[in-house]
Amino acid sequence: MKIAIDAMGGDYGPPVVVPAALSVLAEDPDVEILLVGQEEPIGRELSRCQAASHPRLQVCHAPEVVAMDEAPSQALRNKRHSSMRVGIDLVKSGTAQAVVSAGNTGALMAIGKVVLRTIPGIARPAIATTIPTRRGKTLMLDLGANVDCDAAHLFQFAIMGEVMSRLVLHVERPSIGLLNIGEEEIKGNEVVKGAGQLLRNSSLNYYGNVEGSDIYRGTTDVVVCDGFVGNVALKVSEGLAQMISAELKEAYAASWYGRLAALLSLPVLRRFRDRLDHRRYNGATLIGLNGIVIKSHGNADAFAFAQAIRVAASEVKHQLIANIAEEVQTLLSEQQESTA
Amino acid sequence: MKIAIDAMGGDYGPPVVVPAALSVLAEDPDVEILLVGQEEPIGRELSRCQAASHPRLQVCHAPEVVAMDEAPSQALRNKRHSSMRVGIDLVKSGTAQAVVSAGNTGALMAIGKVVLRTIPGIARPAIATTIPTRRGKTLMLDLGANVDCDAAHLFQFAIMGEVMSRLVLHVERPSIGLLNIGEEEIKGNEVVKGAGQLLRNSSLNYYGNVEGSDIYRGTTDVVVCDGFVGNVALKVSEGLAQMISAELKEAYAASWYGRLAALLSLPVLRRFRDRLDHRRYNGATLIGLNGIVIKSHGNADAFAFAQAIRVAASEVKHQLIANIAEEVQTLLSEQQESTA
Repeated sequence: MKIAIDAMGGDYGPPVVVPAALSVLAEDPDVEILLVGQEEPIGRELSRCQAASHPRLQVCHAPEVVAMDEAPSQALRNKRHSSMRVGIDLVKSGTAQAVVSAGNTGALMAIGKVVLRTIPGIARPAIATTIPTRRGKTLMLDLGANVDCDAAHLFQFAIMGEVMSRLVLHVERPSIGLLNIGEEEIKGNEVVKGAGQLLRNSSLNYYGNVEGSDIYRGTTDVVVCDGFVGNVALKVSEGLAQMISAELKEAYAASWYGRLAALLSLPVLRRFRDRLDHRRYNGATLIGLNGIVIKSHGNADAFAFAQAIRVAASEVKHQLIANIAEEVQTLLSEQQESTA
Repeated sequence: MKIAIDAMGGDYGPPVVVPAALSVLAEDPDVEILLVGQEEPIGRELSRCQAASHPRLQVCHAPEVVAMDEAPSQALRNKRHSSMRVGIDLVKSGTAQAVVSAGNTGALMAIGKVVLRTIPGIARPAIATTIPTRRGKTLMLDLGANVDCDAAHLFQFAIMGEVMSRLVLHVERPSIGLLNIGEEEIKGNEVVKGAGQLLRNSSLNYYGNVEGSDIYRGTTDVVVCDGFVGNVALKVSEGLAQMISAELKEAYAASWYGRLAALLSLPVLRRFRDRLDHRRYNGATLIGLNGIVIKSHGNADAFAFAQAIRVAASEVKHQLIANIAEEVQTLLSEQQESTA
């Protein structure tokens, strides 16, 4: 398989992207990589890594770069020769089977929608990612692509999440939870209630409503929500994890005794950190586009970026797009039969 | 001041409520307490604590109890002699200046709305609480009372949050953030955009949009959101904190070396835990009701419940209701002038 990589995206560009690409090439002989971007800085980095003539690595020149703070509409109109656009074009033409970028999320989604369109039956793409939980991993979507969703959108997210959990995370019959709130009288808004109805009437393994606290408990394999709520949930988690980590450091640093205890605790704290290391969960899927597009965190290092490439490779290997397309057709015709 | 306490609410009832009440009475000579509920179990607990004849403590008999899982409409119609209802009635009649309950949130809000009504100018009450942040404390609302809000509701939440932060948390000119998502193209839904407009045109110290990660960073003194998003944010935090704490324990318990390191780290880990102890933040205000109603966590212990009573006492002392009523009138007339 060929994976196109936007070598210019993110906070670091080639110095992170090139070593990440090389490490995936070294571990997976099925992968070929197209590095898309400005030849000069990419070439410099390849030389530095002594990989200027890797047999499964090509450079595809693209002179322009989409800025991290550029308006997506702007990027879409004016940056037809950007590394991001050329990478997506390579997927559209079939030259590559997936594209990975650490660039501007809004631009990536906007260009993806225009160039690749959506999978038939899917109205809107979503952003999906796996997160660590007490019981393993949970797939969550949407994490910010859609601020206003209706019940049918959430139902489509559930279908895509089910396929992705089954194929990529190897869960046999993934359970699906609808993110909601717990108060009795006010159980969710109309959209969530409508989506619950659609899910209950489908052949999906619908668990029911889950609350915010269920996400990290791993209550269900898939958690579905609109992009506003999902984005807040993800960023609240980021903020809280940062605070806890900072407070823990300060507590250890507050006395000589604490500093000694920290020193002795180092192996334990490392083990703890590794388990929850967000870099191990890098690589969100822009799911619903008619082509595999993976978004890496903008400030990913080479370890994290390689993880995003692995997500792309796994989705290609398991033919995610074709499987989603098939499942969408099955479930939508099932729906029509039940209402007929 | 007199504070009514629903002695039957929550997971434990009198065995938690009575010791909590006694500890607040001991530390604050201005507080008198009315324990509302079934005389028999309350009396038993008072005897056990050797406080049957405390000069600032009275028992007010109420035979019925609202169950934790009872439908609010049910509780409202059928439980006119419940400890919760009688406690709220005591505030309505002016006998008490505040009521504290660890009971069913939905029922507390429903009864509060019917008996006390809302402050003039406030369409809907919200649930507000303080949360620990890197820079101290932030006041957040709504945490679950309203799943569908319009821009005017969010604006009213901002007004109430501002007054509460100023009076109860002693922040001089509280900054107000509107919880939103970060993507450029899709900055929030229409409701949030509309609320931003109202806030920008007001004399409040409006900071602008904040993201989920800003909450724990303490970017603003007040964070405003609808009850769906707020509830998810709060419960996601609960779930993540539980997971981190469990993972940390497991990392320490995984080897004899880890267990030794844990033993040596105990004083440090205690200090860390105390700083973020959720019991210290117990006591959410049902803000916007025309009377002070404080909700304690259902599984609060005596330490946590006492904290909820202190929140009530502080709001009475600072005349929260009168001050909100005044500020609402000022800001609404300001709004009318600017549109006139």
